[in-house]
Amino acid sequence: MDYNKVFDQAIDRLHAEGRYRVFIDILRNKGSFPNARCFAHHNGPKPVTVWCSNDYLAMGQHPDVIAAMEEALHDVGAGSGGTRNIGGNTHYHIQLEKELADLHGKSGSLLFTSGYVSNEATLSTLTKILPGCIIFSDELNHASMIAGIKNSGCEKRVFRHNDLEHLEELLAESDPDLPKLIAFESIYSMDGDVAPLHAICDLADKYNALTYCDEVHAVGMYGDHGGGISERDGAADRITIIEGTLAKAVGVMGGYITADQKIVDVIRSYAPGFIFTTSLSPVLVAGALASIRHLKQSCEERDGQQAAAQKLKDLFADAGLPVMDSTTHIVPLQVGDPVKAKKISDILLAEYGVYVQPINYPTVPRGTERLRFTPGPVHTEEMMVDLTKALVEIWSRMELRLAA
Amino acid sequence: MDYNKVFDQAIDRLHAEGRYRVFIDILRNKGSFPNARCFAHHNGPKPVTVWCSNDYLAMGQHPDVIAAMEEALHDVGAGSGGTRNIGGNTHYHIQLEKELADLHGKSGSLLFTSGYVSNEATLSTLTKILPGCIIFSDELNHASMIAGIKNSGCEKRVFRHNDLEHLEELLAESDPDLPKLIAFESIYSMDGDVAPLHAICDLADKYNALTYCDEVHAVGMYGDHGGGISERDGAADRITIIEGTLAKAVGVMGGYITADQKIVDVIRSYAPGFIFTTSLSPVLVAGALASIRHLKQSCEERDGQQAAAQKLKDLFADAGLPVMDSTTHIVPLQVGDPVKAKKISDILLAEYGVYVQPINYPTVPRGTERLRFTPGPVHTEEMMVDLTKALVEIWSRMELRLAA
Repeated sequence: MDYNKVFDQAIDRLHAEGRYRVFIDILRNKGSFPNARCFAHHNGPKPVTVWCSNDYLAMGQHPDVIAAMEEALHDVGAGSGGTRNIGGNTHYHIQLEKELADLHGKSGSLLFTSGYVSNEATLSTLTKILPGCIIFSDELNHASMIAGIKNSGCEKRVFRHNDLEHLEELLAESDPDLPKLIAFESIYSMDGDVAPLHAICDLADKYNALTYCDEVHAVGMYGDHGGGISERDGAADRITIIEGTLAKAVGVMGGYITADQKIVDVIRSYAPGFIFTTSLSPVLVAGALASIRHLKQSCEERDGQQAAAQKLKDLFADAGLPVMDSTTHIVPLQVGDPVKAKKISDILLAEYGVYVQPINYPTVPRGTERLRFTPGPVHTEEMMVDLTKALVEIWSRMELRLAA
Repeated sequence: MDYNKVFDQAIDRLHAEGRYRVFIDILRNKGSFPNARCFAHHNGPKPVTVWCSNDYLAMGQHPDVIAAMEEALHDVGAGSGGTRNIGGNTHYHIQLEKELADLHGKSGSLLFTSGYVSNEATLSTLTKILPGCIIFSDELNHASMIAGIKNSGCEKRVFRHNDLEHLEELLAESDPDLPKLIAFESIYSMDGDVAPLHAICDLADKYNALTYCDEVHAVGMYGDHGGGISERDGAADRITIIEGTLAKAVGVMGGYITADQKIVDVIRSYAPGFIFTTSLSPVLVAGALASIRHLKQSCEERDGQQAAAQKLKDLFADAGLPVMDSTTHIVPLQVGDPVKAKKISDILLAEYGVYVQPINYPTVPRGTERLRFTPGPVHTEEMMVDLTKALVEIWSRMELRLAA
């Protein structure tokens, strides 16, 4: 058994497919997002504009968030020092869980160290509490949901993306007496399309299924208080479990679920991914609390983001760039080849000071490789016009296909 | 299918066993750890002394750590804004990975959002890269290692705790041509005993197995530079992968592995639990970097901790309290019953202002329920004497068994 040979082969496969990933070495400039500085391959930091951050509303630099984190840092210190059960629960955690439950109109909420862990821990645990449970999973669900479903060991039925007829077909052919859970996202982050929440809930009612909705790319950005698509569409009370993140529009780090307190209590008591891990640093929790409270009463960031997204889509379309169909704040440009996607990204960084990451397999299916832009309230019209010009020049230089 | 009934039953089972857990509501007082304030069931916060924190060296309040976090917060903001591959890599992450690799004498290192995720992601991914891999796992391995092994889907052989004969027996009867991995911890956190690292590596050499050592309860605390038991015993270069945490002695949050750069590259490129999650907040990474750098050149905290642990063990033993056999900084008191363990903890908190959590199943096996004390450099002799007196009084009041 030659271990080194096996490891070499695993890495060689990535190079051969053109999808070996290299980390970019940057620091964002707080107070002037989306500006950042890039370290590698330069003499000293080089200024860049970030176009691919999931800190969608730039809350990571909001004065309220920074002040709350600084206060917590000086009041209670750097880390929590333990798991939620053993030494690592704080007053901040309890306050934030109340705030999140309220945001989604639920009676309970539970924090996790990340959105990934929220999904993995909740889905894998819930189905162990419900023996025989069948999970109905949208084919484009995020890797963390897939991990949770896989690790649950339960039966899984994958329905075609947002295809209600296919979902109903699968529900109808299942044993009516077995527990069921429909798992889906509200916004699919790589395409920017939205799930029909009410229609899915109608099917859940008809077939007595629980519903699990991942709102990580919607929380803070949709609904009058930032409660996500489920708030916008008035569907929150029809969804059994809403999962969200503190690491995207909220601007900090961490994940959560909200649901009936009884369900939260079950997950809290049985999920290894919750029980056996140090809780979120109180510094992060204090920051997330300030961010959520701000976003509940301010629409300025949400409105700014929607305006920026529309503007960038219009600029791309007018220039003939192959902007993909998105009804949300996410603006993907189709490339369809991992090597070309990486090359465009490299040229943008080296020649134009633009940072946008190529999105390759396994994040998106092979053949749909893309550049994914996330314009927000801090991206100016001038930045967007410059970006569009740069892309048109590169598209021409590389003889890439324009929009049909 | 009555979902509510099933959820109620799941919670009722916990109450019936006396192991339904209630979070304590506290805030630690930075600058005067182990002092904290407790919120629930009082009129205003009540002062308490924390005896069960895994912030073992009180680095969570160290001025260097606080200053580094404050600087990062103001320089780059609250969160990273993305995954390591897409928008969420920072200069801090790269620097910390270099520092951690150096700490353990390895060529590579990789950060994760937690120690739990480090173990789960690395173990489940590594074995997928090595088809047919057999994992040899110590029976007392942490839940996160068990999760990683289970989720890998590979064959698992459990050896009796620290039992080299049993481990060799299992290795010898396995196909010599198949890849093998021995997974173990250096310090078992609930008992405080230590694994024989060299002897395990001898067996790994003999049977051509890789080794995976969880050092989360040792990093920062053992070895001249805080490299853990593997540094103390001069065994780091014999262990394939060392896993550690930034959330215990380092005082912040997050986890990592160190290994040959080739192996790190494989995990970095293939592990869903690494790829599909927002990276650690740069604020945390900056704090951990300052903490690791301090602990590399200061033995003051380590020495203070060892002295405190020895003192507390002596006081407990002299008072006839059933202190369990531990060769490390962990001081467990055997109770053997979940209801009694909780009751002792409740009395300590209510009457003595002492916070120590009862440790019940599933954290430890049923029948071995205990109180687990983690004295450190900030616990004074006076605090220890008072604690011992309180315990003696409660032991007498509850007519509990003294040491044999």
